[in-house]
Amino acid sequence: METKVKSAIQDRYPDDFSWCYGCGRLNKKGHQFKTGWDGDQTVTYYEPEPDHTAIPGFVYGGIIASLIDCHGTGSAALALHRKNGYEPDSEELPPRFVTASLSVNYVKPTPQGTLLKAIGTIEEVHPKKFKVTVEVLADGERCATGEVVAVVMPASFGAK
Amino acid sequence: METKVKSAIQDRYPDDFSWCYGCGRLNKKGHQFKTGWDGDQTVTYYEPEPDHTAIPGFVYGGIIASLIDCHGTGSAALALHRKNGYEPDSEELPPRFVTASLSVNYVKPTPQGTLLKAIGTIEEVHPKKFKVTVEVLADGERCATGEVVAVVMPASFGAK
Repeated sequence: METKVKSAIQDRYPDDFSWCYGCGRLNKKGHQFKTGWDGDQTVTYYEPEPDHTAIPGFVYGGIIASLIDCHGTGSAALALHRKNGYEPDSEELPPRFVTASLSVNYVKPTPQGTLLKAIGTIEEVHPKKFKVTVEVLADGERCATGEVVAVVMPASFGAK
Repeated sequence: METKVKSAIQDRYPDDFSWCYGCGRLNKKGHQFKTGWDGDQTVTYYEPEPDHTAIPGFVYGGIIASLIDCHGTGSAALALHRKNGYEPDSEELPPRFVTASLSVNYVKPTPQGTLLKAIGTIEEVHPKKFKVTVEVLADGERCATGEVVAVVMPASFGAK
């Protein structure tokens, strides 16, 4: 079974936009989620830390929401990049997306001490807006589902 | 302006259920969100840490989702406790809720370095299920809105 993403889109974001607490490779205290293609779906693997507890034994819902959030923006970046003719290992820098909305359904308690797999299915709803439907699996069982609407980052974000 | 909750429901959860990464008072690495009454609405104050970055200068959406999540379960616990005749400073232990679903709309980028205020409006949708509508303000401006459906924790959660 795969447990690691091979060509993560987050490894290709420009340095200035790689500080995200969820998925920025330069944020050493963050979760460092990594999202890549798996056929025409997308995947992120992540094992929550022992402190990421809800009730002891189960994963905190905010971590699952974070995983779905960054999986969503990463998936949208992968999709637009591919539409533009590029894969993550291309020299061309990928677009950067931000989250417009996020929803999570907690289907069942998510066990701790297990590698989680988020799987994304992408739909373009506008040239600059993508909807990503996400399933989160633990040991092959679906523990949460979610949806992210991600939009191309407005230029004003980079002004700082 | 108030910046701190006086009688937080999380300070009254039983020890076994006080390890939540979002709001458990015993989880030293967690966010330690604190939720209390403000009239018939609820409030949580929280200043994200410098590492809780999305794009530099703005707060990571997963932290905002976490704030809304725990604010929702805390608000539901406050509401059912009050319905049962108790306030947080009562000796009676409050009920503990878990999140069934969570949604967040990111209205505008949330600035870092600012105390956030989450305000909750509670609706009972079933004797064991509450819907909490949440607004997140930074410097008085609404940066995010959300909704949490929280249900009384099933007995199976405490079996561990």
